[in-house]
Amino acid sequence: MKTFIGVDLGGTNIRAAKVDEEGNILQMVKDVSEPDKGAEHVMSKMIELIERIDGYEECEGIGMGIPGPIDTIHGKIIVSTNLPKLVGYPIVEHISKHFNKPTFIDNDVKVATLGEACLGAGKEYPIVYYVTISTGIGGALSIDKKVLSGQNGHAGEIGNICIDRNRNKYNILNVGAVENEASGTAITRKGKEVFGDTIQHAGDVFELARQKDEKALEIVDNMAYDLAMMFSAIAHVCDPHVFVVGGGVMKGKDVFFDKMEKYYRDMIHVGMQPVVFKEAMLEEPGIIGAAMLPMTKIA
Amino acid sequence: MKTFIGVDLGGTNIRAAKVDEEGNILQMVKDVSEPDKGAEHVMSKMIELIERIDGYEECEGIGMGIPGPIDTIHGKIIVSTNLPKLVGYPIVEHISKHFNKPTFIDNDVKVATLGEACLGAGKEYPIVYYVTISTGIGGALSIDKKVLSGQNGHAGEIGNICIDRNRNKYNILNVGAVENEASGTAITRKGKEVFGDTIQHAGDVFELARQKDEKALEIVDNMAYDLAMMFSAIAHVCDPHVFVVGGGVMKGKDVFFDKMEKYYRDMIHVGMQPVVFKEAMLEEPGIIGAAMLPMTKIA
Repeated sequence: MKTFIGVDLGGTNIRAAKVDEEGNILQMVKDVSEPDKGAEHVMSKMIELIERIDGYEECEGIGMGIPGPIDTIHGKIIVSTNLPKLVGYPIVEHISKHFNKPTFIDNDVKVATLGEACLGAGKEYPIVYYVTISTGIGGALSIDKKVLSGQNGHAGEIGNICIDRNRNKYNILNVGAVENEASGTAITRKGKEVFGDTIQHAGDVFELARQKDEKALEIVDNMAYDLAMMFSAIAHVCDPHVFVVGGGVMKGKDVFFDKMEKYYRDMIHVGMQPVVFKEAMLEEPGIIGAAMLPMTKIA
Repeated sequence: MKTFIGVDLGGTNIRAAKVDEEGNILQMVKDVSEPDKGAEHVMSKMIELIERIDGYEECEGIGMGIPGPIDTIHGKIIVSTNLPKLVGYPIVEHISKHFNKPTFIDNDVKVATLGEACLGAGKEYPIVYYVTISTGIGGALSIDKKVLSGQNGHAGEIGNICIDRNRNKYNILNVGAVENEASGTAITRKGKEVFGDTIQHAGDVFELARQKDEKALEIVDNMAYDLAMMFSAIAHVCDPHVFVVGGGVMKGKDVFFDKMEKYYRDMIHVGMQPVVFKEAMLEEPGIIGAAMLPMTKIA
């Protein structure tokens, strides 16, 4: 069976894995990334790490997932908060020359989308829209196991979709951007506004909602409606077969998800109702999806 | 040069044309469709019409554009207000058997998208989002000269995107659906509310705006903002290279379009600014796009 190398490059750690065609992780290695020491240093780390994988020489290709907007054509990072010294560095050129293997790069959410679309919850469906609800909200469209990057690598920047123009402005995102209203960060902020510093994270608000606290239920109900508005906008653009939903906030799915889906189904045409929601199922969609980059490009 | 047959089937007329690979219409014929006489009657009309085209036997394939949601896989109409007796009829099977040629069908907006993406204003761009602003608002995503139909043929039903949850409910569309707030029909309704029956269509409101009537300018300003909200939602989903904009309401582009674009550019990330707007340029995008269906599938 063919094998591929998937790399997850973050601001703190680099992880590399050998993955087979069926998405099984055969070996995984990890090291700190130390991005403050510069691009060359991070590249050396990554190369060392890959060379620690048994039989890396036989792998068919290398795929890398990196946070932030990525120039997939030229193999570079466009913008990065965690890896600023790597912006513009020819990552793909450097790695592909060293290993003499086909090498690809994409945004971490897009490679996770590819992982879920090829081997996870979206496996059976042609049009998959992956949504991750975590600190932020992001996503990506996959059609026939290929992921849309967009002209500027910004396809799937759905956290910036405005779901209500009558909200406050918080940061560079739009007024009423769904990420500022329904992400983990947003629910934590709203929880603190009502309950004070007893709220440490979104899970605390969900726990109060489970205990039928009315104010917590109100926060959750608004979150469900806001998310439904976002899902509805996406659906009218691309009418997917499935929404695959992942991210840490899904730990509270028992509290908000059914409400969200009910609101959502009232916001789409009758003919669009066959769409289904699935929870993301891969434990490591990022690293598996990264490994799928060379597979879906070569095959 | 290869030639293809494009058919535009509407509630009033059927038109068929012979189109070459470069999108030149070599011959066009037309007849009434008389859909009240049933599906078999309309099929006979269509066949007669195609057989009136000189050299139809040598054409490589047949493509048909039809209003409403289309099942492109099974070659049938799903829902239709103008052609109710054709719903569910195996149109593609019937026509392909008769002519023994590859035959394809899609929604009229989607074939127009294909026409503009292959041969019109979107020709130079990989990711094209076509938007038509007319009686209604619709659109479609084209990637590498292929159009996305969606699971249910509803991809591009962007008229139902909610751009403001604090509006009135008018019909089956969502509260604040952009089609109910910024289409030709919507601008006519808003014009009548302010100016009474002197307003016959959206163009009358645009004319008053040209004369600097403050109330007309207010309608137009709201329209521009509402459209910007819709374009922004689409852009965050798929980050296109170009928006190609057509439809009768573009006759008033001098009044609303620059405002719209300015609002829009404030609603997207810095990295997404390279996106451009182009006006749809084909005189007959529907019939040319229909003829492109067999070309883009065969080639």
